[in-house]
Amino acid sequence: MDAISVIRTKRDRGELSPEQIDWVIDAYTRGEVADEQMSALAMAILLNGMNRTEIARWTAAMIASGERMSFGALSRPTTDKHSTGGVGDKITLPLAPLVAACGAAVPQLSGRGLGHTGGTLDKLESIPGWRALLSNAEMLDVLDTTGAVICAAGDGLAPADKKLYALRDVTGTVEAIPLIASSIMSKKIAEGTGALVLDVKVGSGAFMKTIEDARELASTMVALGTDSGVRTVALLTDMSTPLGLTAGNALEVRESVEVLAGGGPQDVIDLTLALAREMLDAAGLKDADPEKALADGSAMDVWRRMISAQGGDPDAALPVAREQHVITAPSSGVLTRLDAYDIGVAAWRLGAGRARKEDPVQAGAGVELHAKPGDTVTEGQPLLTLHTDTPEKFAYALETLPGSYDIAPAGTPFTATPVVRERIA
Amino acid sequence: MDAISVIRTKRDRGELSPEQIDWVIDAYTRGEVADEQMSALAMAILLNGMNRTEIARWTAAMIASGERMSFGALSRPTTDKHSTGGVGDKITLPLAPLVAACGAAVPQLSGRGLGHTGGTLDKLESIPGWRALLSNAEMLDVLDTTGAVICAAGDGLAPADKKLYALRDVTGTVEAIPLIASSIMSKKIAEGTGALVLDVKVGSGAFMKTIEDARELASTMVALGTDSGVRTVALLTDMSTPLGLTAGNALEVRESVEVLAGGGPQDVIDLTLALAREMLDAAGLKDADPEKALADGSAMDVWRRMISAQGGDPDAALPVAREQHVITAPSSGVLTRLDAYDIGVAAWRLGAGRARKEDPVQAGAGVELHAKPGDTVTEGQPLLTLHTDTPEKFAYALETLPGSYDIAPAGTPFTATPVVRERIA
Repeated sequence: MDAISVIRTKRDRGELSPEQIDWVIDAYTRGEVADEQMSALAMAILLNGMNRTEIARWTAAMIASGERMSFGALSRPTTDKHSTGGVGDKITLPLAPLVAACGAAVPQLSGRGLGHTGGTLDKLESIPGWRALLSNAEMLDVLDTTGAVICAAGDGLAPADKKLYALRDVTGTVEAIPLIASSIMSKKIAEGTGALVLDVKVGSGAFMKTIEDARELASTMVALGTDSGVRTVALLTDMSTPLGLTAGNALEVRESVEVLAGGGPQDVIDLTLALAREMLDAAGLKDADPEKALADGSAMDVWRRMISAQGGDPDAALPVAREQHVITAPSSGVLTRLDAYDIGVAAWRLGAGRARKEDPVQAGAGVELHAKPGDTVTEGQPLLTLHTDTPEKFAYALETLPGSYDIAPAGTPFTATPVVRERIA
Repeated sequence: MDAISVIRTKRDRGELSPEQIDWVIDAYTRGEVADEQMSALAMAILLNGMNRTEIARWTAAMIASGERMSFGALSRPTTDKHSTGGVGDKITLPLAPLVAACGAAVPQLSGRGLGHTGGTLDKLESIPGWRALLSNAEMLDVLDTTGAVICAAGDGLAPADKKLYALRDVTGTVEAIPLIASSIMSKKIAEGTGALVLDVKVGSGAFMKTIEDARELASTMVALGTDSGVRTVALLTDMSTPLGLTAGNALEVRESVEVLAGGGPQDVIDLTLALAREMLDAAGLKDADPEKALADGSAMDVWRRMISAQGGDPDAALPVAREQHVITAPSSGVLTRLDAYDIGVAAWRLGAGRARKEDPVQAGAGVELHAKPGDTVTEGQPLLTLHTDTPEKFAYALETLPGSYDIAPAGTPFTATPVVRERIA
């Protein structure tokens, strides 16, 4: 077995054998297959695809590269959520404590920002003192005590995926359905959750631009989860425009806390509740009432305990960027489009995301929205506020914004895209 | 400009801009673009192609990555040959001294083995004392004194190509027409030869398996050369079966010396003469008589001087492998097929080639042929002799050989493929 013959098989549109897959994942984890070989293979997979059999084996090989966790000792049923990533997608922040407040245990192993989408850990790290890195024992302790934990996956969990994920990020090979599906599911299956709800984003700001691609990814992942004994459901949700009114780390934490306090933008509330119902249902907690848990402050209580348990101060002031730049509406009318991808790139360029995985992110950087598609706007009113600590980046961020929104004459009919578009189980 | 956006452009079937190409080649040479990024780009180029404009720019950027040589000070016209690589392709060895004996200067910058095809430098290094690495001054001196030089390209010549060639070798991205064409032509144009004859191999043992691919590669390279002021001609030549009766380093040197001594296999003689005529013609030496120079020993004289000038002893005994294994004909009849690729892989596995670029090659290893397609064979006669210093490799080499030849009943009509199939100018 050698790397070149495996690469050639896929390059020439062949099917990778189980032995080839097991070997290449193991050899890559051990460093025998080099990064430059794996990235060539990843590009061949991106362009030539993998069938369901190959994807299942690839996922199993990534799980086998590390340890498997178990939540069997917990008294509550475990249920987890994974989003494929979008702009302004802070849903994990209010969702995990909300579902915990309803009686489930939520072991939310999260990641950092990848490309133009933000990362849950980057967001939470804007809370002074909060730590993403926990040992397995600490993680179980926070989960047991508070009902929810959001932290970085330990190094022991699917190390092959960890290495491959970092590689794909810098080699233009993120957008491959087989690699996305196996990456997500290897971690979730190894993590040992009993139930899993997948939030598969679709639209300009998502990795899946079309509903067909999103369906393929969702059904691939649901099959992988189900075949591994995890009760798995997927919602296809809209990512043509940012979720909520903020994209950026501290900006999104602030908005999440608003939702936990009973306020916040309607789309964030709606999606949080929809996902909470699915998670609770999959965990067998059919009588739970997440709407009540949000209204009565019990979700907020879990949030505060969860943040404190990881060293964070839930009452601390959140960082604010040093400089702001306001973009105003050039005309009056109805905002008919506000492109998620463009806003994501602008937030990324302002410092909310990273160009290289070693780069720091700015806690305060990002984009604030003053209107959403369907809203009426008046010429000269603020449309977007850009936030950054490094104002020399304004020009770079502004490059992406012409053409990122449309304002139609007042009275133009507008049909909103529902947040939840389809359900796949 | 960043690596990921360049990779994405090609991944998504876009055309790379001149600025993207200049940037990515320069940044890769400087180490700013990482190997794993370049290999992903190479795979995207292999699968999605480049158009003529992109290839010309890519070639120019690789030339610009290093120095350009000049042979203006020589009294003779320069003419060079490049083969795309085949099994048993030792033609450079008799050809360079032959053309020099006819009055041209032959600056033959050669490479090492790549995959299942042998490398000219690996072959010559089986001659005791011979050195492949010369400074530019030494190279010019050997060329001026003997009329021919075969050596490794200096580090200053197209360093981007040097780096990319090594990368492609280990990432399954060798077989991309745009990358093959630009790799060959960047070195040949930077080297400064006045005329160039391309030997584009076609068949199972070549990188180009079909005549259509070979034509595309040849016409791409002829256009690149011509546009850069190099008189360039291509011959498409057969590589469905090995050239001559040997594949391996010292084995091929021995056969080349036979040809220079007036003997040797007919196909090697024919191709050597055909290429010599093209090289001399392109150099403006229309009255030269290579057949005579081979017959009267003047080519052999140049060979001996050329080998001596680089430290080699033309009279030294060549290394012989420690172990031999003979494969006999399983039936009597006409040998109708003897597959070049399979023989190349067997020679490679026996130790004539390398799995990693740091690996040494065995001077004595390889495959000796006792019959060629069209020959009558008798059951039990030797068909192939395998040579190696490491007999534990016999089994691995033998794996490739069943199915590598066909013997038809005596009297079965057989039509030989001509060695030279087409000419493109």
